[in-house]
Amino acid sequence: MLTVALPKGALLSDSIRLLQSVGLDFSAFKDSANRQLQIQDPTGTAQALLVRAQDVPVYVEYGQAHLGIVGYDVLREKNPQVAHLADLRFGSCRLSVAVKSSSLYRSVLQLPPHGRVASKFVHCAYEYFESLDLPVEIVPLSGSVELGPITGMSEAIVDLVSTGRTLSENGLIEIDTLFESTARLIAHPRSYRLNTGDIHQWVEDIRSAVLINC
Amino acid sequence: MLTVALPKGALLSDSIRLLQSVGLDFSAFKDSANRQLQIQDPTGTAQALLVRAQDVPVYVEYGQAHLGIVGYDVLREKNPQVAHLADLRFGSCRLSVAVKSSSLYRSVLQLPPHGRVASKFVHCAYEYFESLDLPVEIVPLSGSVELGPITGMSEAIVDLVSTGRTLSENGLIEIDTLFESTARLIAHPRSYRLNTGDIHQWVEDIRSAVLINC
Repeated sequence: MLTVALPKGALLSDSIRLLQSVGLDFSAFKDSANRQLQIQDPTGTAQALLVRAQDVPVYVEYGQAHLGIVGYDVLREKNPQVAHLADLRFGSCRLSVAVKSSSLYRSVLQLPPHGRVASKFVHCAYEYFESLDLPVEIVPLSGSVELGPITGMSEAIVDLVSTGRTLSENGLIEIDTLFESTARLIAHPRSYRLNTGDIHQWVEDIRSAVLINC
Repeated sequence: MLTVALPKGALLSDSIRLLQSVGLDFSAFKDSANRQLQIQDPTGTAQALLVRAQDVPVYVEYGQAHLGIVGYDVLREKNPQVAHLADLRFGSCRLSVAVKSSSLYRSVLQLPPHGRVASKFVHCAYEYFESLDLPVEIVPLSGSVELGPITGMSEAIVDLVSTGRTLSENGLIEIDTLFESTARLIAHPRSYRLNTGDIHQWVEDIRSAVLINC
């Protein structure tokens, strides 16, 4: 039976809607009373796992899920050994560098050498500043990264931005973008090669549904 | 002014109650309408930052908070450069190894060599199995670790247990405990040495309040 790993949070509703459009109904995950993390589609064709966004590639990498839906940001940060199959064109956001709007920095090259940058995306941030030959110290945080510049712990942050509301509410402005992100369809490489659970057909159906929606 | 980093989640209420007993009121953080992550005590003596539990040691290590309250589990996992000042005697839980109750494993030494163990506590789990000369593969997850054995991805998990309800609801049983954990008071080492913000007196007051409550 096909197993799909779905991400909790911002991408869940659109992921469920997309799978519904190809005939797989996991809408029970949207029921606030639901406590199950593993459910079957009512037709018995497939099952889904509801996991944290960062864990989707782990389940797919280990083959516990044949397919997964996850943000490109997570794939860039974790670099898992999974097959990237399709851009699903929802969940748009960007990984950006932001500073206090009251600061004098208006480009990353103005940041002080050995300055501090707070981020949940330690790997992406490191690679980005390395590519600019800008030696900064990355401060790893797991949430509320905007507190970094507010408390004075860091000159800048690298964080996901969608509407920009959190930044502006905290007096921060974007000065550069590392990359744009959307939701992606990924697969366990071996399962995909062996067409386990008729993956090829599901992937084609999902690709067609994405094209119709655009 | 003294700055204290407080952890979101399970330890917050008891942390606020403890600080109230020494005259610092940060109960505004408990107001569900509150969106501020940085507030002052009404007397203007101190301020508090509300951050994720894993980030408390980061703010204290960088000196952005002079004091912090955080679980011993986080300190063991992250091993931050902070001064450990007091066991606050609340937030009791334990980091345990658990397996499916339907499995045949009843001790960690029965786990298969090169078996898989899912955990959020990758460092603690690695150290523990290393100390037992048991070569296992640690699968890093960020949430719902109980799905590891349920989906068959791992033979065991290493996770925090307080009441044991999540384990039993998921058909899992504990077979060993790595360590017991409680909330701890930590300090920025240099601020503590220099007695910034009259830390020494605050720490004495907190220690006395803990003894009175026991």
